[in-house]
Amino acid sequence: MESFFTFLEKRVDDCSSLLCIGLDPYVNDLSEPTAASARDFCLNLVKQTSRYAAAFKPNTAFFEVFGADGWTALKDVIDAIQEESNRMGSMIPVILDAKRGDIASTAEAYAKSAFETLGAHCITLSPYLGKDSIEPFIQKSEKGVFLLCKTSNPGSGDLQDVMVTMDNSPLTMEDNSSSIVHGPSSVPLYEHVAKLAQTWNTKNNIGLVVGATHIDATKRVRLAAPDLWFLAPGVGAQGGELESALKAGLRKDGKGMLLPVSRSIARAEKPGIAAAELRDQILAIRSSMIGHR
Amino acid sequence: MESFFTFLEKRVDDCSSLLCIGLDPYVNDLSEPTAASARDFCLNLVKQTSRYAAAFKPNTAFFEVFGADGWTALKDVIDAIQEESNRMGSMIPVILDAKRGDIASTAEAYAKSAFETLGAHCITLSPYLGKDSIEPFIQKSEKGVFLLCKTSNPGSGDLQDVMVTMDNSPLTMEDNSSSIVHGPSSVPLYEHVAKLAQTWNTKNNIGLVVGATHIDATKRVRLAAPDLWFLAPGVGAQGGELESALKAGLRKDGKGMLLPVSRSIARAEKPGIAAAELRDQILAIRSSMIGHR
Repeated sequence: MESFFTFLEKRVDDCSSLLCIGLDPYVNDLSEPTAASARDFCLNLVKQTSRYAAAFKPNTAFFEVFGADGWTALKDVIDAIQEESNRMGSMIPVILDAKRGDIASTAEAYAKSAFETLGAHCITLSPYLGKDSIEPFIQKSEKGVFLLCKTSNPGSGDLQDVMVTMDNSPLTMEDNSSSIVHGPSSVPLYEHVAKLAQTWNTKNNIGLVVGATHIDATKRVRLAAPDLWFLAPGVGAQGGELESALKAGLRKDGKGMLLPVSRSIARAEKPGIAAAELRDQILAIRSSMIGHR
Repeated sequence: MESFFTFLEKRVDDCSSLLCIGLDPYVNDLSEPTAASARDFCLNLVKQTSRYAAAFKPNTAFFEVFGADGWTALKDVIDAIQEESNRMGSMIPVILDAKRGDIASTAEAYAKSAFETLGAHCITLSPYLGKDSIEPFIQKSEKGVFLLCKTSNPGSGDLQDVMVTMDNSPLTMEDNSSSIVHGPSSVPLYEHVAKLAQTWNTKNNIGLVVGATHIDATKRVRLAAPDLWFLAPGVGAQGGELESALKAGLRKDGKGMLLPVSRSIARAEKPGIAAAELRDQILAIRSSMIGHR
């Protein structure tokens, strides 16, 4: 069985796109506040944007809020993506944006919920509980995870930016003062997470969430995790700058970065055209980058 | 309206208990692998243990795994706790063990899902995304959160134990060597989280998850967050030592620590008696501690 990221890369090639279409049926965007309306909102978006979708990313929160009916709607939406994929003859990965994180048998239940009950191919997870909380999700290489690393929100710095001391760093001596000895070198916590993820990724099924709103952080994470795919929210409604983000985060092969967009596409008069335009904009930037190498 | 922890403390007084009964309908413990069976498992546990329950804690994972039917079962269980509370004339708080964590309108949707759709009083959250991801859950003082701080699992150290440099720490000079200057002092990440939570807790509705399996960490967190309630899993099936844990974590008023137990109670021949015995054991240890002050 192919790994999750081999599967994703096949789809990226098929549709020449790095766009991940977010399916966020935010209640204010719905014709009425019901699970049925949330489902229809997503089904319409899937139909209109599937040609340009390297992946679809439904966010569980906007379904959960409708209780059991919301979960039925979420399952319907994931099934519809499968049908659309079959129709097109190119499988589109479903990334469940759930940001789960729990331990032991609880983590196993979440993995089963995402991958078996719902039929998603990948899930977003919090790394805060450590590797054993990730294990149940990465046992099968064809199922993937994106670990939160550096998120796009203003408060992300509260934990993610704290400087942490790396155990194995050598003591360094300052040139201009023989009397001062510094301790081990420090990196932001998000960089520590990136390094852990790079190490843990033995089955080609771990990626990182790195906000496209943080260009410097994206550069640091790319250095720390040269091989990993990033899910990079913040382009579009959240105001990230597309070109700087791509330059900071794309791998040398012109891949490795999936750009989730939701409201800027969903609220467009013609979501399909908005998606096509953004896809082409990304391709143009990527071509100019590869051309300059 | 009273704050969440005032509400919890009232219940703690009413039932003279610090036990939080976990409602974890783990599939292997069910008579059959269905949502109906999960619901019945929980309803039975609620009925048998309610007299000794300072709170009930259903874990969403074990319901989600059954899809929409699981969410209906979860809602039924929370409603049943409400009915049992009315019957006893003492409200029992419901802590939704969901370990959610997301930003902006997504966090708002999760808060609405937990507190309005499901009717829980409190939720467990990951702190990794920072304060703005917590805000939507703590706006109303009567609704509470427990933030993951130091969890009970073996892998918790991967992130939670990394040493972080506190910005505002003064440089310290070692007494026995005038030539060495240390950098700012370091604390484990979980202690940084505890300090943040203590600062953020302006409405008496933020607590911390601190595994009873980590006695030294519990002591450090108690020093860093002297006022906060801990949700301290690990007593019972996870092997935490009750007496050491209580000594490390209880506040001076003999409160401040809620002890979640699930399998050791649920798998007992008579869950009500098992709960009563554990409740009494905790009370005895607490009395001896207060007696020695």
